[in-house]
Amino acid sequence: MRHLLSAGDLSRDEANHVLDTAQELARISGRSVKKFPTLRGRTVVNLFYEDSTRTRTSFELAAKRMSADVINFSAKGSSVAKGESLKDTALTLQAMGADGIAIRHGASGAAHRLSTWVDGAVLNAGDGTHEHPTQALLDVFTMRERMGSLEGLRVTIVGDVLHSRVARSNVLLLHTLGAEVTLVAPPTLLPVSVGTWPCSVSYELDGVLPHSDVVIMLRVQAERMQDAFFPSAREYIRRYGMDGERVAKLHDDAIVMHPGPMVRGMEVTAEVADSPRSTVTEQVTNGVSVRMAVLYLLLGGSESAIGN
Amino acid sequence: MRHLLSAGDLSRDEANHVLDTAQELARISGRSVKKFPTLRGRTVVNLFYEDSTRTRTSFELAAKRMSADVINFSAKGSSVAKGESLKDTALTLQAMGADGIAIRHGASGAAHRLSTWVDGAVLNAGDGTHEHPTQALLDVFTMRERMGSLEGLRVTIVGDVLHSRVARSNVLLLHTLGAEVTLVAPPTLLPVSVGTWPCSVSYELDGVLPHSDVVIMLRVQAERMQDAFFPSAREYIRRYGMDGERVAKLHDDAIVMHPGPMVRGMEVTAEVADSPRSTVTEQVTNGVSVRMAVLYLLLGGSESAIGN
Amino acid sequence: MRHLLSAGDLSRDEANHVLDTAQELARISGRSVKKFPTLRGRTVVNLFYEDSTRTRTSFELAAKRMSADVINFSAKGSSVAKGESLKDTALTLQAMGADGIAIRHGASGAAHRLSTWVDGAVLNAGDGTHEHPTQALLDVFTMRERMGSLEGLRVTIVGDVLHSRVARSNVLLLHTLGAEVTLVAPPTLLPVSVGTWPCSVSYELDGVLPHSDVVIMLRVQAERMQDAFFPSAREYIRRYGMDGERVAKLHDDAIVMHPGPMVRGMEVTAEVADSPRSTVTEQVTNGVSVRMAVLYLLLGGSESAIGN
Repeated sequence: MRHLLSAGDLSRDEANHVLDTAQELARISGRSVKKFPTLRGRTVVNLFYEDSTRTRTSFELAAKRMSADVINFSAKGSSVAKGESLKDTALTLQAMGADGIAIRHGASGAAHRLSTWVDGAVLNAGDGTHEHPTQALLDVFTMRERMGSLEGLRVTIVGDVLHSRVARSNVLLLHTLGAEVTLVAPPTLLPVSVGTWPCSVSYELDGVLPHSDVVIMLRVQAERMQDAFFPSAREYIRRYGMDGERVAKLHDDAIVMHPGPMVRGMEVTAEVADSPRSTVTEQVTNGVSVRMAVLYLLLGGSESAIGN
Repeated sequence: MRHLLSAGDLSRDEANHVLDTAQELARISGRSVKKFPTLRGRTVVNLFYEDSTRTRTSFELAAKRMSADVINFSAKGSSVAKGESLKDTALTLQAMGADGIAIRHGASGAAHRLSTWVDGAVLNAGDGTHEHPTQALLDVFTMRERMGSLEGLRVTIVGDVLHSRVARSNVLLLHTLGAEVTLVAPPTLLPVSVGTWPCSVSYELDGVLPHSDVVIMLRVQAERMQDAFFPSAREYIRRYGMDGERVAKLHDDAIVMHPGPMVRGMEVTAEVADSPRSTVTEQVTNGVSVRMAVLYLLLGGSESAIGN
Repeated sequence: MRHLLSAGDLSRDEANHVLDTAQELARISGRSVKKFPTLRGRTVVNLFYEDSTRTRTSFELAAKRMSADVINFSAKGSSVAKGESLKDTALTLQAMGADGIAIRHGASGAAHRLSTWVDGAVLNAGDGTHEHPTQALLDVFTMRERMGSLEGLRVTIVGDVLHSRVARSNVLLLHTLGAEVTLVAPPTLLPVSVGTWPCSVSYELDGVLPHSDVVIMLRVQAERMQDAFFPSAREYIRRYGMDGERVAKLHDDAIVMHPGPMVRGMEVTAEVADSPRSTVTEQVTNGVSVRMAVLYLLLGGSESAIGN
């Protein structure tokens, strides 16, 4: 594995190796070793063409905890924001000696193109509506911690699948790891290609909930409700929002996940967000561990230094 | 002391402990040890909802000199800038393992609210018109270095007290440490509650100067002069500005302080700003030492590692 | 040498010492020592009044590889952006203990003025249309690596000399090191003072190419073409752009340089940019080494720690 471009690129063994490494790093961190010397002298660049303070900060923290030097190369608003110069930006970062580049870009496929131009490792931190593999890894890590095995786990993903890189990455990774995924969305918020995805589809949330172990609520952007022929956000919430009544249909150990940032009262009510079923803050914590593991495995020295 | 939210929370002993620690750190730094390993592996987040390059830089430098990792989490302009999501931002930073959060926010009380949501230490870096406790600590540190004891020291604070978190924090801390404070401002720039503050009030600067050991000139924002019924900034300066003539009314050892950024010719003439009485740059230097001390005491390991 | 303000300030020996130090640092870095402890505990401030992600990042990386702490003090848009407060910003950074300040400013002479106010080292990272000495050093470093000696090297600089700090710094440094420089530009894009510069001038590119060992293509800003009485950018390119046909007029070992960011199809065609003659990415790599060397020599401890 030289880059992390798509969750679908990971074999079951590779995915488990990332998850095991993250678990080991989290275990050691919890015992007061907060900083690992592994990536000392290495340079990680955060190349963000879209704002995302949360994801950028998570990568920055992960890299710093591995002792790497971090450069925030904000492309937004500057002259490099123009699509045509992605190649020259890549060659510049390459020439500066970047060992790893975490890229967030509005165009699907940007991370893949970047990987063809540089020798360092490319980490896809979200490309258009395509993929967000570290999000899928942290989600799966969280499920494994809460539910044990992924094998046969029933995972329901709810909301705007059409515009969601989180949904696509999760479907691919969960399928690899043996989980059964159901997408729940109005037809207008599903991609036309969804029939080829390794998962089931439903338009009705209430019928699916009793058979779900994990429910992932996708972020909803109000301005897309109209495109999806919903008369109002309120109408969307009535059919696809997660409130106390719907949570009551889940079995006792089922969990509710959200990639954040969460708008309370939109996809999830405050009551649900603050309940013990909600894993939102665990996901944030796990995001740092998973990104430490990915940086370690892609940039790190010998694998014998850590792991199982 | 788990957080530093208000200068008024500090007992005399606690305040002196911070000041003594800052003095010790400054002493050692002056002898070529520039970097302390104390906070290695700890994460300090600068959570700034308002621009303040100076204060943010001071906290960043202080944290780096204690070997902490620093994350600048600029909330301005991003989706987290909306007040309602402060809680979710707090929970995110908490989940990422922030050991300390320095927060600057436009709403009075924001630092206090943040402290109810996180386990890490909260450092109030300015909340609305409420408080700016590290500013008061660095001001008091500067007075102690210049004037010796705080006991009985006559401190005059001049200007827009109504909108000044610096004034409030200084009044509280100076009172705790035994100084006598006089506020000098036009009635329209004093808060209605000022009668309950532990200090005197005067409307005329010239009468107070001969009895002042320290004069703190507050920053004046031109756009507030009209609200305060001043026909012009010039008229304000005539009555409350510090120029050579007014400085001549001070006794020989008296000092003139300013929290910066200073507009020469507004609160203070260039002549006064560059005179030996002015402590503006000393205050900046001391700001780093004081913030190192606060980070050390709130986040640091055993207190035996340093200090008396 | 206390500051690096102008390429013209460097004697031949000083310039060679910087270049030799950069070469030594690059040599050691290439052999897996990526990080030098030399500037541990020192603080380098990037004080950028103009956006320049590339130059800022280069200085940031160079400082971090020398183990310095780096503060990005972005002045753009903030209150300190006003010219009149450069002095107070300088005094603030000085008071915070900045050991080195890399300044980028729109006003020619800003770096020099800064150097009169601070004790730390000032590194001119570009001031107006005046100078950009680290760019000249990295260009010369690149020529030395590619062509061997600078003595008698025939260097042609093409384009908007009038607005180029790169051209001026290169002319001065190349002259010091014994190279022969020819400027090629339309008369409207040459400064009136060019007659006093230590170089030749030509208005026709094609005649100069066969006698050039090195061609530096300056960046062209489309909006200045009109001021220069060119009917269109296309017309400019026809006379001063570097394409395959023009490259064919160069001798076999001649190289084409560009300070970046490059607009393919403007000063240089994509074909030329990606050819082995092009040194654009080498220049970026060398920029980090040269800036490491300058930081080392200006801020570093004893010179015996490294070098020949």
